[in-house]
Amino acid sequence: MSFYDKLKFNEDGLVPAIIQEAGTGRVLMMAWMNRASIESTIQTGRTHFWSRSRKKFWMKGEESGHTQTVRDLAFDCDGDTLLIQVEQVGAACHEGFKSCFFRSVEGDGVNFRMTEAQLQRPEDIYKKK
Amino acid sequence: MSFYDKLKFNEDGLVPAIIQEAGTGRVLMMAWMNRASIESTIQTGRTHFWSRSRKKFWMKGEESGHTQTVRDLAFDCDGDTLLIQVEQVGAACHEGFKSCFFRSVEGDGVNFRMTEAQLQRPEDIYKKK
Repeated sequence: MSFYDKLKFNEDGLVPAIIQEAGTGRVLMMAWMNRASIESTIQTGRTHFWSRSRKKFWMKGEESGHTQTVRDLAFDCDGDTLLIQVEQVGAACHEGFKSCFFRSVEGDGVNFRMTEAQLQRPEDIYKKK
Repeated sequence: MSFYDKLKFNEDGLVPAIIQEAGTGRVLMMAWMNRASIESTIQTGRTHFWSRSRKKFWMKGEESGHTQTVRDLAFDCDGDTLLIQVEQVGAACHEGFKSCFFRSVEGDGVNFRMTEAQLQRPEDIYKKK
């Protein structure tokens, strides 16, 4: 049985993909994939996604250079979420942080704090193109 | 500013929550939360979710005993995904695996393999209740 037969796409033909840094285990980001972007990810070894806001197929790093090389692609019990281990070049987050999850809620359950330093300013990432 | 002001719920009032084991970094599962389940998670220190299939608010482990004690709650740049560090009792997966992501795609991009051993049979987990 093909792994594609195990997948359950949502009503928009998408599944969420959790991107984790191989080795460190740091969760870098979550983004959405359709069948075509999964196939491209597997065929090229670089992550490809579907942007719901831009309605656009894109390769991670195509503008920023911050590509993700795939080391493992796992899927969950229900077949509706992917977990992809990658080697990340530079910042995964478009705001210039290694991980998109750079803020945590404080003990009071309301306020939050930054948990990592910004690697680059967004204007320095995207002026390259 | 409250962290709730940073959140962007989808059209169903939900955000996906990635659950990661504190210490090991193993990604255990992904499930959905509404505002009430986030508040309960923060207030009790145990993860609570919204089941889209059962249309039901639930505490992880309420039937299985496989609870998750929260160590950190982070949110992403867009405010539309949570990343929660937990201490997991037993198997996070209802199929009896530590993680729901117990299968990975093979090098051929089509076939898949098991990557971890089953800790418990589902019938042994749920007979407890």
